[in-house]
Amino acid sequence: MRFIAYRDDDGAEAFGRVEGSRAHRLRGVAGIDRATSLAGLLDAPADTAGTELDELTPLPVVTRPGKIFCVGLNYRSHVDETGRDLPEYPVLFTKFASSLVGHGADIALPPESAQVDYEAELAVVIGRRGRRIARADAYDHVLGYTICNDVTMRDYQYKTHQWVQGKAWDGSTPLGPVLVTPDELDPSKLAIALRLNGEEMQASSTDRLIFDVPELIAVISEFTVLEPGDVILTGTPGGVGYRRDPQVFLSDGDVVEVEIEGIGTLRNTVRAEAAA
Amino acid sequence: MRFIAYRDDDGAEAFGRVEGSRAHRLRGVAGIDRATSLAGLLDAPADTAGTELDELTPLPVVTRPGKIFCVGLNYRSHVDETGRDLPEYPVLFTKFASSLVGHGADIALPPESAQVDYEAELAVVIGRRGRRIARADAYDHVLGYTICNDVTMRDYQYKTHQWVQGKAWDGSTPLGPVLVTPDELDPSKLAIALRLNGEEMQASSTDRLIFDVPELIAVISEFTVLEPGDVILTGTPGGVGYRRDPQVFLSDGDVVEVEIEGIGTLRNTVRAEAAA
Repeated sequence: MRFIAYRDDDGAEAFGRVEGSRAHRLRGVAGIDRATSLAGLLDAPADTAGTELDELTPLPVVTRPGKIFCVGLNYRSHVDETGRDLPEYPVLFTKFASSLVGHGADIALPPESAQVDYEAELAVVIGRRGRRIARADAYDHVLGYTICNDVTMRDYQYKTHQWVQGKAWDGSTPLGPVLVTPDELDPSKLAIALRLNGEEMQASSTDRLIFDVPELIAVISEFTVLEPGDVILTGTPGGVGYRRDPQVFLSDGDVVEVEIEGIGTLRNTVRAEAAA
Repeated sequence: MRFIAYRDDDGAEAFGRVEGSRAHRLRGVAGIDRATSLAGLLDAPADTAGTELDELTPLPVVTRPGKIFCVGLNYRSHVDETGRDLPEYPVLFTKFASSLVGHGADIALPPESAQVDYEAELAVVIGRRGRRIARADAYDHVLGYTICNDVTMRDYQYKTHQWVQGKAWDGSTPLGPVLVTPDELDPSKLAIALRLNGEEMQASSTDRLIFDVPELIAVISEFTVLEPGDVILTGTPGGVGYRRDPQVFLSDGDVVEVEIEGIGTLRNTVRAEAAA
């Protein structure tokens, strides 16, 4: 089943089941939060009439995740282009809820950065609380999957050896368009691609993840509880703009699409923020 | 003025003004959240009778911060002991709300880590929302100050070049005992010390911060909004256990005290978690 978070005509947050081209609003569910469960979403009654998807304003699939984990260097093709060693433990860093925007929203291009880059990623949304989750049990904790563009300000990322100031700019990171429940796809073999103004810049498959979804859940939950609504961004394949020759960075008006097999396409336009 | 977050006899979260040895519960204020302001705290009516502080169970001064920023390598004495270069931009990383414990609570010693270390730090709590806050305006955004022990699992910190898995263990990081409002102290010249089982391990002054409080607020708010309840841990001076010869790590039953002039003493006991 597929779900979408969106803003209704009154400006309130809403959450709906997607059937064909229409969203059917769930009653009593305003979005994914710590009380969310997969059974709760599947069983929630939905309005019958529904609204055309293209009439909605999508929100990030999770509007206020408690935690967002990002994984660096998790595809060999990306490790190779950075010249780094293959990691023996996932390279973890974080974003914040304020980093996120929905499908169709603008990616904020801040005046301070001259090196804003794209990164196509499969995103996992947690649906059941757990600590020290065994690899074998990890899929039981997944609510579903969506798409992320892990937009990164490279000049800020490399200001020090820690990355958060290059990764957590407000309004930078699209997450969506929909949540797809685990029964609908196998996250270990999905084609993933990114197009910039229609030109393919990244193309790979999630079967090339160095640390797969169960491993990431096991590793992260060793040190902190994973709760419903927490998000794990699983890393990006090769082809990022910073590692190209010549380098490619995002500009005002650029259109970035990330497509993942079985989920759909996350499409956003880059817009310059007014100078500070 | 001084405030304390605590759990009342019914298990509910409470927030009180400290006068002498007693806490006077604020009416209509359960704790610091995004709606908190300094004026709101100062003006809130308080119960007159009060409760002895030593009868309370303190909570972290902010129980669920939206964001927790940590600053690495922000005292020259600590930079020197690590052998790294002086940073030209603050070294930033994050913890989570689930990392925090209150004054007097146990620091969870997880069975997975053999290198649990202490770090005495001045903590800043934000009290007014802002983005791209100018250095000159930064103090207007401070709700107050408290103490943090930025407990760190060194073996996990150095698993990769990114640090979060060594910094964000659940139940590891004491924050308290009280919030002190800005009128009561000058954060730029406070003695700071850490004692392990009564022996002084760290001793410095916040006048040696490489990036001071206004600078940290300006730098962080350049890329993300700072909101009431967000916390900035300003970094630790030299003397951490990992850099001693021989190295010192925390063990079951150890008592760690962090004292900062004008705020008080944050005291916690280390307790081994049951094996996973």
